[in-house]
Amino acid sequence: MDVKEIDSKLFTPGPLTTSMTVKQAMLHDLGSRDTVFINIVAHIRQKLLEIADASSDDYTAVLIQGSGTYAVEATFSTSVPQKNAKVLIIENGAYGQRMIKMCDILHIDYDTLSFSETEQVNCKSVEEKLKSTKYTHVAVVHCETSSGILNPIEQIAALVQQYGSDNTAFIVDSMSAFGAIPVSLKNGLITFLISSANKCIEGIPGFAFVICKRAYLLKCQGNSRSLALDLYDQYQYMEKSRQFRFTPPTHAIIAFKQALDELEEEGQLIYPGKTTVTDCFRIGNIGRLYSTDMEILAKCIKDVCVEMNIDLPLKNVD
Amino acid sequence: MDVKEIDSKLFTPGPLTTSMTVKQAMLHDLGSRDTVFINIVAHIRQKLLEIADASSDDYTAVLIQGSGTYAVEATFSTSVPQKNAKVLIIENGAYGQRMIKMCDILHIDYDTLSFSETEQVNCKSVEEKLKSTKYTHVAVVHCETSSGILNPIEQIAALVQQYGSDNTAFIVDSMSAFGAIPVSLKNGLITFLISSANKCIEGIPGFAFVICKRAYLLKCQGNSRSLALDLYDQYQYMEKSRQFRFTPPTHAIIAFKQALDELEEEGQLIYPGKTTVTDCFRIGNIGRLYSTDMEILAKCIKDVCVEMNIDLPLKNVD
Repeated sequence: MDVKEIDSKLFTPGPLTTSMTVKQAMLHDLGSRDTVFINIVAHIRQKLLEIADASSDDYTAVLIQGSGTYAVEATFSTSVPQKNAKVLIIENGAYGQRMIKMCDILHIDYDTLSFSETEQVNCKSVEEKLKSTKYTHVAVVHCETSSGILNPIEQIAALVQQYGSDNTAFIVDSMSAFGAIPVSLKNGLITFLISSANKCIEGIPGFAFVICKRAYLLKCQGNSRSLALDLYDQYQYMEKSRQFRFTPPTHAIIAFKQALDELEEEGQLIYPGKTTVTDCFRIGNIGRLYSTDMEILAKCIKDVCVEMNIDLPLKNVD
Repeated sequence: MDVKEIDSKLFTPGPLTTSMTVKQAMLHDLGSRDTVFINIVAHIRQKLLEIADASSDDYTAVLIQGSGTYAVEATFSTSVPQKNAKVLIIENGAYGQRMIKMCDILHIDYDTLSFSETEQVNCKSVEEKLKSTKYTHVAVVHCETSSGILNPIEQIAALVQQYGSDNTAFIVDSMSAFGAIPVSLKNGLITFLISSANKCIEGIPGFAFVICKRAYLLKCQGNSRSLALDLYDQYQYMEKSRQFRFTPPTHAIIAFKQALDELEEEGQLIYPGKTTVTDCFRIGNIGRLYSTDMEILAKCIKDVCVEMNIDLPLKNVD
């Protein structure tokens, strides 16, 4: 059980391999109401807006304790009124399907538009669906963590604008894309963009965040089906006190500040790949991994395939 | 914003000052489905039962991502059926009042029995209340973090047994007591005991836990008003796969294992004090603090009082 002996590179979609300096940032205990900590939180919220190319006049970043799923549920719970709402969930994989499960539990009325988990969301079908019904909310996963498939969120956003009402919210679960795939909220078409500390920004797990269109969020008071997962309350309390409502994962937040600094230094962008086979395993290419690590991994896969008598046309691997 | 220069002792009720070895345990990235990590989680769940003096035949420890409040909400959301339930909330401070707020949001029917935040819960009043109405759930805070007042949970548990039905659940929020104030679940009178990683066990924030009476928990399927905060689902998934449903705060969990090891080595018990004044500030005496730290703090308080011309009868301080 000695973890020191087994530090392996993590080719997983998060938690992931972080830099030693990110981990070392956690060697400090800060009070959650400490000015230094409060300034770190403000810095993070501002930096997230910059990465999202979002104006702080129009958008605000709300941090929420827990995993990415908590932030997705918080977004549905907070943004969808308890009456007179109709959500369209566009899904092509496990994380889209998780949204459906959430809406069932939260008693949210919804339609689904489903695609195979091996193909992108088809915009023609989205257009037909949006023509047929007026939705109050449209939700989609940006990069399906289960398959790595990247969905055309800009085109979907334009369709939501074209066929929705002025108040239709567009919710994007950008868990495995934000910080790696460039995104711009400048045109204001995305209402809620969700991601997590332990994904492409390369922080450690403990909290997630939602970049919210402020004007929309301000209309969400009293919607939430949960105290803990109330984005509106979280936002209001943070704005008034600059503090969290409930104990934040202070160490994970300090580490995230460090990860953001390192992202800025690197200007690094990592592009997730796609897979078009059904019977597969996932190789995460996020985290502190370099081309050498990938080459070693490919070599290992080759060795295992040889050992298991699996005939794979692997090239460029010694 | 350089945190290295300002590492102060935290006299706060959590996050708190942890040992350097607890923090150093976080210098490793482990995959959440890694065997080493899975074994750490199993170890933690078992150790929590031991600290609670609970048999693993009757009880199970469920870890949940987020702060302590998340675990309290998860307990209400999961244990209280959506119909035909009536909860009694016994409260004498902010954390008891937070339970009331949760029940409002979760549409849970409840009565309250309130006491001044400067006095213990009165068992005579509890008895009268329990005589008057059959409750399905009774909830109380063990040590009110807001005031430090310790409530007589053993006596309340006995009253719940005496006046409740066979199925009445007794919920104890033991956030600031568990690991410091001895507790025994041997007699089976507590149904749910809730605490958090960053309290008396002296871990870092990122998750909380609920020690649940298994037979009761197993009847809770489908109750939860939330996907993320469903203790039943969290338990079932963990039992089947030994893994978390959603990304766990891996580093906080590894640190908690280290904190538990250190607690065992020390056999340390810390007793929170009480305050009987209304106009006060809180001094946390949990965390890696020793008598010298307390003496230095008392000296600092004296100096500030002198500076502010506050006349306090401080004794035994140089």
